[in-house]
Amino acid sequence: MSTSLSWGDILASRADRMRASEIRELLKLLDQPDIISFAGGIPDPSLFPTKAASDATAEILGDPVRAAQAMQYSVSEGYAPLRQWIAGHMGRLGVACTADNILITNGSQQGLDFLAKLLISPGDTALVEAPTYLGALQAFNPYEPRYDRLQPEGGNVTPAEYAARAEATGGRVKFAYVVPDFANPTGETMTVAARNALLDLAGELGIAIIEDTAYEALRFEGERVTPILALDIAREGHIDKTRTVYCGTFSKTIAPAYRVGWICAAAPIISKLVLVKQAADLHSSTINQMVMQSVVASHYDAQVEAARALYRGRRDVLLAALAREMPEGVTWTKPEGGLFVWVTLPEGVDGAELLAIAIATERVAFVPGSAFFATDAKKNTIRLNFSSPNEAQINEGIKRLARLLGKM
Amino acid sequence: MSTSLSWGDILASRADRMRASEIRELLKLLDQPDIISFAGGIPDPSLFPTKAASDATAEILGDPVRAAQAMQYSVSEGYAPLRQWIAGHMGRLGVACTADNILITNGSQQGLDFLAKLLISPGDTALVEAPTYLGALQAFNPYEPRYDRLQPEGGNVTPAEYAARAEATGGRVKFAYVVPDFANPTGETMTVAARNALLDLAGELGIAIIEDTAYEALRFEGERVTPILALDIAREGHIDKTRTVYCGTFSKTIAPAYRVGWICAAAPIISKLVLVKQAADLHSSTINQMVMQSVVASHYDAQVEAARALYRGRRDVLLAALAREMPEGVTWTKPEGGLFVWVTLPEGVDGAELLAIAIATERVAFVPGSAFFATDAKKNTIRLNFSSPNEAQINEGIKRLARLLGKM
Repeated sequence: MSTSLSWGDILASRADRMRASEIRELLKLLDQPDIISFAGGIPDPSLFPTKAASDATAEILGDPVRAAQAMQYSVSEGYAPLRQWIAGHMGRLGVACTADNILITNGSQQGLDFLAKLLISPGDTALVEAPTYLGALQAFNPYEPRYDRLQPEGGNVTPAEYAARAEATGGRVKFAYVVPDFANPTGETMTVAARNALLDLAGELGIAIIEDTAYEALRFEGERVTPILALDIAREGHIDKTRTVYCGTFSKTIAPAYRVGWICAAAPIISKLVLVKQAADLHSSTINQMVMQSVVASHYDAQVEAARALYRGRRDVLLAALAREMPEGVTWTKPEGGLFVWVTLPEGVDGAELLAIAIATERVAFVPGSAFFATDAKKNTIRLNFSSPNEAQINEGIKRLARLLGKM
Repeated sequence: MSTSLSWGDILASRADRMRASEIRELLKLLDQPDIISFAGGIPDPSLFPTKAASDATAEILGDPVRAAQAMQYSVSEGYAPLRQWIAGHMGRLGVACTADNILITNGSQQGLDFLAKLLISPGDTALVEAPTYLGALQAFNPYEPRYDRLQPEGGNVTPAEYAARAEATGGRVKFAYVVPDFANPTGETMTVAARNALLDLAGELGIAIIEDTAYEALRFEGERVTPILALDIAREGHIDKTRTVYCGTFSKTIAPAYRVGWICAAAPIISKLVLVKQAADLHSSTINQMVMQSVVASHYDAQVEAARALYRGRRDVLLAALAREMPEGVTWTKPEGGLFVWVTLPEGVDGAELLAIAIATERVAFVPGSAFFATDAKKNTIRLNFSSPNEAQINEGIKRLARLLGKM
């Protein structure tokens, strides 16, 4: 991380740039029973395939040969049958690939850490949207990137300008990071035109694209938009010639606690990332990968359908409540999927200040929008999650929040 | 990692410094049924507490409240009852601490990665023994340290000399890394005097000590040596004033595949490492931590006793076979515990060349010693593991290896 800190210095400074996480810590403390929380980004536990997971575990550990494998060290790239299942899954999304294009990671978060570790030297530039996923900024920050703003739907500067700005701070542009489907925090989805424009930009700059698809499966309506990696393959003719690194996860469709995600990318990139994985933690939990493979092989489609139905209903209730309750001057996104709605407050209303008042007076929590900006935070924004609160809580919580905003 | 590589450069160079892992890959391929392998460092699967783990999983997932917790996101520092159990375990080892001094990691390997991430900037110096654990070098290498040689049992240069050498390459000494008990690869244990001398050195340099205790529980005979962290606490009066970071794991006592290890250190350091954990992969698998807590609470002592008995017998057979079979000029360590014996071959016999011949002609595998040196490899060395081969395989394997060496 930063230069020349001794053991004694650590306490004072080394982790300062990770402070954004304090907001999460704050919100964690505030998830108390009497608070209606739109803060987290966590799945509804009623969706977890508890019985399928329990049965799979019992079956694996009940067979001495499989049990010995399940509890032993295993290869860094991941459990082969799971990698094969994921390769087939990627094929159904339009990404032609094999298990050689798949690395198992501890959720997609670990994929973000590995890519920054592989690509970023201090002073290099990462292109990110504003706002973007807070956890991505946390994953990238330890490698000390400079951030520049990506505006995929219009507003990007020229490749030469991005490159010149990066060189001015002594580094190079290394990657563009996007959450193209139902983004965290905005809920918005990139158009095909924007995806193609991003591929053009990345090609001219000679950089990677990190495609974070944590919410991709949770589409409630409308047509699926082709993954950036699939568009890249269509241009280059083969996945092994592409620059797009797809980070997927089972956290939002099956269960987060198994910590099973994946990276899908050109095989030579996967080979490098396998070495990063080996150095970082040897491999992901063997038993968790075996259980996950068993669960997704039999339950993936049903899990996704159930999650879509539940969250679609909650989104509908949230959008209806916002339309019914919110005062003039408040606007919000209308996501076609995912877990989040992004609310823009009247100019001058600070989301962080609103949170403090909302908790104290109305017992409502959410995440202030400023947490999601690498630089130049737009403070009059908040993120509302609709996967955790139930429909009654959503109605009551928005009523309270609107009441508070009406007084301001 | 290194400076200014574009996406295209990656394929050519970025991961070059991780090449040591290729030896592991080679050995993995060579773990074929007809080969007697002394290569791996893996536990014997007959020791895995399969039934206890299966029962614990069924119990947790059979209770709706615990199941919802087990499959959900959880806090980065780890599952509180497991941290409490580990704090009690550390107390039994002479380390007075609380759960605030414990962070759960994905095995001790992830602890090594996090500490390098927190402490090392390119060009900084890490003090390591020669030989040392290959996986530690792999964890540290991405952060581009310079290595200097630590000789805890005698031969260290002065603190001023270590500091001057580090400054000459533009960095500072940041930590000393040791495996004090039954080290990988040598099987040797640091004396109390050497541990105290290391604390003196670290104090004068103002650096951390990373105490990797992966094998600590596997003592077959003799008195336990006080952990460096316990000696540090005795000097400083309280764990929160110490510089020693203890990296522990259940991989060698319970099962590796759950990927559950821990860091025990001063609470302010744990707070920093919690942020590193959050950025890296959010948290370790919730269900695995809950299962591990259940298993260790009821089975830890029995597991350790069984492992000690099995591995003690195999070590005895290995040492007897070496004494019986090896030609003049071959020497080896006599470990009081752990998984490894370190063999020094006659001058001029290269362990890597011997491996190629041993596999081709005698169907015997081991790890060439050169893999375990950060610099200036002593090539006439090999590491023999005695936890994987059974007693008959050990006798036959050493007979074959001695036969080959007798011809050279």
